Amino acid sequence: MDIKHYMQTLGSQARDASRIIAAADTALKNQALLAIAEAVSGGRDRLLAANAIDMQNGRSNGLEAALLDRLELNPERIDAMIEGLHQVAELPDPVGEVTDLQERPSGIKLGKMRVPLGVVGIIYESRPNVTIDAASLCLKSGNATILRGGSEAIESNRAIAACITQGLAAVGLPEAVVQVINTTDRAAVGELITMTETVDVIVPRGGKSLIERISADARVPVIKHLDGNCHVYIDERADRQKAVAIALNAKTHRYGVCNAMESLLVAESIADKVLPELAALYADKGVELRGCEKTCALIKSALAASEADWSQEYLAPILSIKVVAGLDEAIEHINRYSSRHTEAIVTEDRERAERFIREVDSSSVMVNASTRFADGFEYGLGAEIGISTDKIHARGPVGLEGLTSQKWVVYGDGQIRQ
Amino acid sequence: MDIKHYMQTLGSQARDASRIIAAADTALKNQALLAIAEAVSGGRDRLLAANAIDMQNGRSNGLEAALLDRLELNPERIDAMIEGLHQVAELPDPVGEVTDLQERPSGIKLGKMRVPLGVVGIIYESRPNVTIDAASLCLKSGNATILRGGSEAIESNRAIAACITQGLAAVGLPEAVVQVINTTDRAAVGELITMTETVDVIVPRGGKSLIERISADARVPVIKHLDGNCHVYIDERADRQKAVAIALNAKTHRYGVCNAMESLLVAESIADKVLPELAALYADKGVELRGCEKTCALIKSALAASEADWSQEYLAPILSIKVVAGLDEAIEHINRYSSRHTEAIVTEDRERAERFIREVDSSSVMVNASTRFADGFEYGLGAEIGISTDKIHARGPVGLEGLTSQKWVVYGDGQIRQ
Repeated sequence: MDIKHYMQTLGSQARDASRIIAAADTALKNQALLAIAEAVSGGRDRLLAANAIDMQNGRSNGLEAALLDRLELNPERIDAMIEGLHQVAELPDPVGEVTDLQERPSGIKLGKMRVPLGVVGIIYESRPNVTIDAASLCLKSGNATILRGGSEAIESNRAIAACITQGLAAVGLPEAVVQVINTTDRAAVGELITMTETVDVIVPRGGKSLIERISADARVPVIKHLDGNCHVYIDERADRQKAVAIALNAKTHRYGVCNAMESLLVAESIADKVLPELAALYADKGVELRGCEKTCALIKSALAASEADWSQEYLAPILSIKVVAGLDEAIEHINRYSSRHTEAIVTEDRERAERFIREVDSSSVMVNASTRFADGFEYGLGAEIGISTDKIHARGPVGLEGLTSQKWVVYGDGQIRQ
Repeated sequence: MDIKHYMQTLGSQARDASRIIAAADTALKNQALLAIAEAVSGGRDRLLAANAIDMQNGRSNGLEAALLDRLELNPERIDAMIEGLHQVAELPDPVGEVTDLQERPSGIKLGKMRVPLGVVGIIYESRPNVTIDAASLCLKSGNATILRGGSEAIESNRAIAACITQGLAAVGLPEAVVQVINTTDRAAVGELITMTETVDVIVPRGGKSLIERISADARVPVIKHLDGNCHVYIDERADRQKAVAIALNAKTHRYGVCNAMESLLVAESIADKVLPELAALYADKGVELRGCEKTCALIKSALAASEADWSQEYLAPILSIKVVAGLDEAIEHINRYSSRHTEAIVTEDRERAERFIREVDSSSVMVNASTRFADGFEYGLGAEIGISTDKIHARGPVGLEGLTSQKWVVYGDGQIRQ
């Protein structure tokens, strides 16, 4: 198989299909989503059989338990895929909206129209449900998609691709609107991320090393986040009860997620009131604490944090804690060490809250709320295609709107430049 | 001089300064712009003397006349720089605006706040006035800037940098808010475009080869346009007078600009009415016509267009012309050959106009107006930092808003995830 030629064929087919899906109206796109849901529903047995092969291969190849868990399809997960398709069909369609209409002194009427990006390449690991999630969001936002899942999931993904193709065909859309790369050859990824003529954006989903590799080699723009080193700062003027509840929830609600708190900052003047109480609660949950000198003086069980701890995304029951002089030091620490994902302040002081909001340079900045709210569903985007910690285009959870951009539209009546 | 170390110092100084300028209020930023204007005004003699050295060196090095013209500063150009600074001070400040506020079912209040990108790197050629234009737009939008002008303009740029530093100091802003790279070593550009830790976006301004080189090597996101192969399509239902006026204006108003029409498409049914009239007008202006077979049959003086002509940005009194069957072929031709800059349809038919607007995938799409309107001033953005023909972030003329993005802000009252 000539991978370069194969990928370029996928690319030019996607480019052609992107014109058609971009011009499709909302009703047709929703019909396609529901037709895919029906195909998935009707294809349950084939999906489970295909997945059983992947699972068998995974076990033979010694895949670790966590990866096998992600790889597995079962009836509940297939139901969730179907439910997800229905939910995306319910979401408002961002495409075609014209905003900021104004008449210019020249007499032209100027506005901005929301339009699809074009062709979106998605690279992910071994969760087969991502195939449906990503395809449905791209389809609803009027984009063509090229999907590349983990090689461990190849049989599951082929079976899902067949359902998608069936659904698209049922409503008369070209099958190249969603294409699943049908090879496990790694060279396919190298091609996909450099096809600037036919691919408009790459969304990598998965571990940090995957995303770093892709970002380093991509020529196509990438929407990504590398990690989530999220902070909660408990201000001197915090409500203690809220502070304790938020700091506990942000760390312990789930450990392996990118919006979990990894570092807690506490104003010096209230550290002796808040930290011992929190330490007891964290101890109950088995959270290991790594603190600065002042923290260790207040919490006997805390280990000494090293410089590396301040930058670390643990994704585990571990928390670094630093006592800071106040708001200024908190903001400075966060802007220095944070991965720009999500940070929260707990305070009853409005001015300090506003300063935190304005000056902390992260994709989500919160007052008196748990960092765990930084999420497409919680934000009302429906599902998210990913989270961006970059500064251009979209920041934070990226939903349908993040898969579009705006072009300028001009309505004239024969105007020419003088 | 250790270029890598020098550039990394500029980068980390810019990152620190970006926090300060991002938090600066509108009044302070405007005061800085006016203080820079005053410094430029007071520094006229030094600017002219520095520029005279660049001009002398340019002549000795055999710089061609067009480049010498761009390089030259004279009292009128200095006035224009001062006027530009005043105009940017008058523009509305996009930073800090919170939109789309909504309460979510969890009780959190969610919104989007417009914020600066952070550190913007600008790479341009030998026009010293770009130094002031770019610096002022970045400053007003709350960004720190690292500027790298053409080596021919180094003395002029050093003198302008001194005025900027003086203006920033006068209002108490750190001088690292605007830094002009003080070396002509090309390695500095290579560093600038790969400093992903400290630079958030690169805006290259200049010829296609410069921009291609930068895009190929950059690791930092780039806002760019490579070329402007703009089209006008004269529909069967066009008003003939408007069609002729627009087609003439779009080609002949200025030849060397990226929003000039380079290719004219005409519906077959009216080609014999429109093309001979236009041919006579183009002949008066000395425009060379390169047509498809049908065009050449209608215009005796037209040369035969080659396949390459359809993709070409002439930036000269040359125009390619193609007779198409109708709207479908026009849209298809444009989406195939256009550089996605600006395209216009001339028609009195609303439905066709709407289809053209929706289906043509360019940064500006126009009805009954000259492509020459695709411009930051005409769009009311004030000056533009550049034009983007990419699909993500900003498309078309990029003004202050294009130098910002939106972060999520969440106001809670102690909410935690259940």
